[in-house]
Amino acid sequence: MYNQHLYELGLAPSVIRELFSYGIQKAAEVGAENIYDYSIGNPSIPAPAPVNAAIKNVVDEIESTVLHGYSMAPGLVGTRDAVAANLKKRFGGDITGNDIFMTCGAAPALIMTMKALAVSAESEVLAIAPYFPEYKCFAENCGVKLRVLPADTAHFQVDLAALEGMITPETCAIIVNSPNNPSGVVYTEETLKGIADILTRKGKEYGHTICIIADEPYRELVYGDVKVPFIPNIYDNTIVCYSWSKSLSLPGERIGYVYVPKKCTDADAIMKAVSAAARVIGHVCPPTLIQRVIEVCVDEMPDLKAYEENRDLLYQSLTEMGYECAKPDGAFYLFVKAPNGNDWEYSEKAKLEHNLLVVPGSVFECPGYMRLSYCVSNDMIKRSLPAFQAMMDKIKK
Amino acid sequence: MYNQHLYELGLAPSVIRELFSYGIQKAAEVGAENIYDYSIGNPSIPAPAPVNAAIKNVVDEIESTVLHGYSMAPGLVGTRDAVAANLKKRFGGDITGNDIFMTCGAAPALIMTMKALAVSAESEVLAIAPYFPEYKCFAENCGVKLRVLPADTAHFQVDLAALEGMITPETCAIIVNSPNNPSGVVYTEETLKGIADILTRKGKEYGHTICIIADEPYRELVYGDVKVPFIPNIYDNTIVCYSWSKSLSLPGERIGYVYVPKKCTDADAIMKAVSAAARVIGHVCPPTLIQRVIEVCVDEMPDLKAYEENRDLLYQSLTEMGYECAKPDGAFYLFVKAPNGNDWEYSEKAKLEHNLLVVPGSVFECPGYMRLSYCVSNDMIKRSLPAFQAMMDKIKK
Repeated sequence: MYNQHLYELGLAPSVIRELFSYGIQKAAEVGAENIYDYSIGNPSIPAPAPVNAAIKNVVDEIESTVLHGYSMAPGLVGTRDAVAANLKKRFGGDITGNDIFMTCGAAPALIMTMKALAVSAESEVLAIAPYFPEYKCFAENCGVKLRVLPADTAHFQVDLAALEGMITPETCAIIVNSPNNPSGVVYTEETLKGIADILTRKGKEYGHTICIIADEPYRELVYGDVKVPFIPNIYDNTIVCYSWSKSLSLPGERIGYVYVPKKCTDADAIMKAVSAAARVIGHVCPPTLIQRVIEVCVDEMPDLKAYEENRDLLYQSLTEMGYECAKPDGAFYLFVKAPNGNDWEYSEKAKLEHNLLVVPGSVFECPGYMRLSYCVSNDMIKRSLPAFQAMMDKIKK
Repeated sequence: MYNQHLYELGLAPSVIRELFSYGIQKAAEVGAENIYDYSIGNPSIPAPAPVNAAIKNVVDEIESTVLHGYSMAPGLVGTRDAVAANLKKRFGGDITGNDIFMTCGAAPALIMTMKALAVSAESEVLAIAPYFPEYKCFAENCGVKLRVLPADTAHFQVDLAALEGMITPETCAIIVNSPNNPSGVVYTEETLKGIADILTRKGKEYGHTICIIADEPYRELVYGDVKVPFIPNIYDNTIVCYSWSKSLSLPGERIGYVYVPKKCTDADAIMKAVSAAARVIGHVCPPTLIQRVIEVCVDEMPDLKAYEENRDLLYQSLTEMGYECAKPDGAFYLFVKAPNGNDWEYSEKAKLEHNLLVVPGSVFECPGYMRLSYCVSNDMIKRSLPAFQAMMDKIKK
């Protein structure tokens, strides 16, 4: 006897994981050097050196029962204060450790926030296509409906008129993910102000606040002079979900936070609901050793040179071949138009004929595009270019 | 706008955490040496030395993006294989790494298992009083009803006749926690066989399996010659939820597992449902550095001498004063009868008059008793004895 719905979800293959597994299996046949795997978003640059130094240091300095003991559910005071101080230094505002709830990464942070904001079984959360497909699983567990704003394929910003039309009295929040997975686009201040204006207006109309859930694991991954606006500075009712998975290359260590700004309406009540949501999903506390490391390393920034070189090489090479791409300002994704408009077909052919693994945009509810994760070796990119060229040549014929 | 139910849950004080906080605040006033805090179950013995050695070693030996990278959701193959080999060596049976799903501790393991087993909104999970009160929060998030079998206060085993009467067609599982929190009692083989017989019989009657969810964080914490039976060897449809929080003194590191034996009915489907349940609660993967440590340290056993000395001192001293206790064979809890039968009153008076912090049994749905967590310094126990004596003297008067 088992839960049928979860069983079916457990059976359903994740397209991304399937591609990734295919690459590993195929590598055993033809050699890893002949696989061009752009499927997954696993950071390819090491954690900054102070991270491993801090791990060894806390092991040496802190008594075992303290180091490995439970922390309070929202995290260690020192860690929360350090995170708050870092945010305050960079973005200003009245931020203290009490506004931070440390989590086991961004996934539970998003779930806790959706649970905290959903007021009934009719509550809706909006996502903006293209979007990270796990949002759907998360929303489902929270008992909220995820509704999706179609992609603005002109600029991969946000179709504000369409957004305004989608908001209903049941809308409690919209997830804003910038720099974006999968498009690599950074939402402009203009876009974010547009969203804020709509939420303010609609919130007044419906008599309740509509929050932005800022999903920000890629905040620090941005190239050139591009700035990622800090959304709480644009819209008061913003709750930030963060993770150090990408910025410190620690995805396996499961560490992130929820930040509920004091100026958010009902901030105290929301934080209490977030805590309770953590409790009911079995959070207990965030991993303590890594909390200590974050306390020490919170000001570290990723060394983005490798990603930037990858982006430049891939973007330049593909556009020269005639591919069209979304403006790749951040994260480590390039979102490329399938030359014949069929992303499934391109992905399948590229896989079977060239061992070139790209994720169909349909997975992110944006058909006709493909996501390329360029958190790979620069050398792999160079070796993969003839495959992209061959795919293009065949389609042009 | 926020979820009212979660807000209220967030407001509701946990009695255990409140006592613990009181102790910390009061210590600042009267000195830590005058606080006798038996409130929480935070291990007081260090992790075995190989744990910290393994942490430093993996940091030195494994490349950063591999060490801190995502693992597959069920965990690293090496870790799962090592866990399976350890179980096989100790308990026999056909156990392989594929039967193990590594989790962020026992709490999510329990939630994933309840979610996987619940077939409808009417599904029921049974708990045996006294029981860990978080079960209720967990069950609620899984959309199952938690029904509680009243305590067998004669021996703190299980009232089998009452259990049989409680099982309905909606019962999908019973949680069995041995060694038990809060009673410290180890369920005998006879008790477990009795439960197994009833579940087999009732399962046949209702035409579906009824699982045991074996919640086993205290498996390794057992004193003298007492043996903790391995429940899958007694009842096929047993799913084990484990954590190294207590056995390796790593509660803050959030590492445990779900073990679904192959002989369990629908084992494959249950494991798929467990995986999907992990996905919807934002599991992603268990912390990877600690997974590597577990791979190396899985055969380590806790040095129980300190706990055993504490148990002996506390049990002997209290029974000499006239207190009655459940038979304290395992875990690090003593479950003591309130001399006047009123656990709330005893706990409150002990706190206010003696800074003696004990948890009312009512918290575990077993009024009239108090839980004493003896994972404390032996010296604190000695200093606390006059307070227990004074409480008893006053009640006897």
